[in-house]
Amino acid sequence: MPALDLTTDVVGLTAALVDIASESLREQEISDVIEAALRPLDHLEIVRDGHTIVARTHLGRPERVVIAGHVDTVPANGNFPSRLEGGVLHGLGSCDMKGGVAIALLLAANVPAPVRDVTYVFYDAEEIAAEFNGLGRVARERPELLAADFAILMEPSDAGVEAGCQGTMRVEIRTAGERAHSARSWMGSNAIHALAPVLATLTTYEPRHVEIDGLVYREGLNAVGITGGVAGNVVPDEAVVTVNYRFAPDRSQDEALAHLNEVFAGFELTVTDTAPGALPGLTRPAAAAFVEAVGAEPRPKFGWTDVAQFTLLGIPAVNYGPGDPVYAHKADEQVPVEHLTRVLATLEKWLSA
Amino acid sequence: MPALDLTTDVVGLTAALVDIASESLREQEISDVIEAALRPLDHLEIVRDGHTIVARTHLGRPERVVIAGHVDTVPANGNFPSRLEGGVLHGLGSCDMKGGVAIALLLAANVPAPVRDVTYVFYDAEEIAAEFNGLGRVARERPELLAADFAILMEPSDAGVEAGCQGTMRVEIRTAGERAHSARSWMGSNAIHALAPVLATLTTYEPRHVEIDGLVYREGLNAVGITGGVAGNVVPDEAVVTVNYRFAPDRSQDEALAHLNEVFAGFELTVTDTAPGALPGLTRPAAAAFVEAVGAEPRPKFGWTDVAQFTLLGIPAVNYGPGDPVYAHKADEQVPVEHLTRVLATLEKWLSA
Repeated sequence: MPALDLTTDVVGLTAALVDIASESLREQEISDVIEAALRPLDHLEIVRDGHTIVARTHLGRPERVVIAGHVDTVPANGNFPSRLEGGVLHGLGSCDMKGGVAIALLLAANVPAPVRDVTYVFYDAEEIAAEFNGLGRVARERPELLAADFAILMEPSDAGVEAGCQGTMRVEIRTAGERAHSARSWMGSNAIHALAPVLATLTTYEPRHVEIDGLVYREGLNAVGITGGVAGNVVPDEAVVTVNYRFAPDRSQDEALAHLNEVFAGFELTVTDTAPGALPGLTRPAAAAFVEAVGAEPRPKFGWTDVAQFTLLGIPAVNYGPGDPVYAHKADEQVPVEHLTRVLATLEKWLSA
Repeated sequence: MPALDLTTDVVGLTAALVDIASESLREQEISDVIEAALRPLDHLEIVRDGHTIVARTHLGRPERVVIAGHVDTVPANGNFPSRLEGGVLHGLGSCDMKGGVAIALLLAANVPAPVRDVTYVFYDAEEIAAEFNGLGRVARERPELLAADFAILMEPSDAGVEAGCQGTMRVEIRTAGERAHSARSWMGSNAIHALAPVLATLTTYEPRHVEIDGLVYREGLNAVGITGGVAGNVVPDEAVVTVNYRFAPDRSQDEALAHLNEVFAGFELTVTDTAPGALPGLTRPAAAAFVEAVGAEPRPKFGWTDVAQFTLLGIPAVNYGPGDPVYAHKADEQVPVEHLTRVLATLEKWLSA
């Protein structure tokens, strides 16, 4: 097992993490080396839960913050191992999100007496179905480990603060018809044709723009899949369109579904997947202080992230990490060195002052 | 190899044919027994082409008719072998179309001196892609074998005369868009949504009713397949709907395509499959005489059948055979004994008077 050197610089540490393969559900090795690197640090209490490592200071500070990152990646795509070139570190997970993990590890090692107590969380299985998510498992089974006043999720956010996140809901809209030979189509009823009003609704739908804490969330309602047909000479008796609704965090999942039922009145909707949004919570003192320390205008987060896990625990949370999220899951995944050093410096300062 | 007994009754002969498995491309055995049964008959000239058997009288009659049937079936569906019950013969191919084949074999054997010269055609591979069709192969390669004034295709037609057939054309209508994460859908363009006008057109389209030779053909325009979608969180960049147009035989394939291009103006259409219609040709003397002999009002044929092969050769053709076509390709495939005996008697009389 290779050892992690927490006295190295952030670029070298990120590269070392990238070079440890850790596709989802194969986090054993990376979690082992992270645990081994943190165990010797006397100022941290270490708890391991599966392949999730929780490391906490206990300094009796009036405020506690969570700094969290997932250690797994999507499958490699010709982008393993790392490669440093012209101020940019390339490689699988460099952006999503081993740069953030490297920063959190350096803070854990090199800021032994932060002005806020810190709970570092390095968790597994974020890139796959929600049931496997290590942060979700700890939140459900050992929520006391995550107790805090504020949480920073180090997902790539272009080194800016992205607040809250939108909820997501996928529904299947299914139409029924009656089969017939297409040469005698008047004997049947065409389920694909019956989807026409659904597509018409989608093309004319005007998504909301919702302002919360000064941030404007843009909703979206999109068909993401459509299927139907029995054979080339048969009037089909079933067709299904899958619609993905991304909703601003002022709406609960129940409210989102009620809205969809209203928009697609007369059709039968089946929810196949949903996750709640997260309010930005920027008016909470801990969050406001953080935003001020970073000194950048916060932006709304449109995609769903694990900040919603903290929201469900009543903890305001933001995304703040190095890397442009457009490179996440891409063959040319990369993170700028400047992001790594700036985000590290900002957090070091915030934890020290 | 079992032998066929052409002195048996039509029900027994149909049952014997049903009991010889002959799924498409596996016609060797059934074609062998048919050839063996016909070879000893001195009044017939036998030509074999692959698994297609052509048997012709050469009596110098002023008129020649083709009587044709395919010997293959769709795959078995728990309906093999045959079973006679309450005046109905059940089993794979009983309706489509070994009842018709049995009648043709009995005519060939038992009407040695018909008043019209007859060309019997027993052909292979009708139930699969057109390229394998034995009748089509002979029509292309040895059209002289099919030369005639009139043709009867013994496909199930409820023991009535079905004239002509409609053409068929399948087109793919493909829309393009631009991929984006569904959480930032305004960055992309949704190809499924772009199909909305196509489905709207299909729901409001009014198919023609076309009268030819006193028969009314009903056209149809139907989506028979639809597909699109990349992933549950991606705005899709491509979607395709497959449309099947069944067109009356007053339209050529070119005219049918021109019509579709007009109906779906602004969309790109790709023809994936097409077959021409066949005019009923009931005003031709041979056809008119046949219809009068059968004594039943002819009906238009909506589905495509091999009568179109004869139309391409300039030979008027009708469907006339035992069995209700709704039982074709069904697990409960069946043919009424009354159809078998009536169609046989009618043709015997027509060939004898």
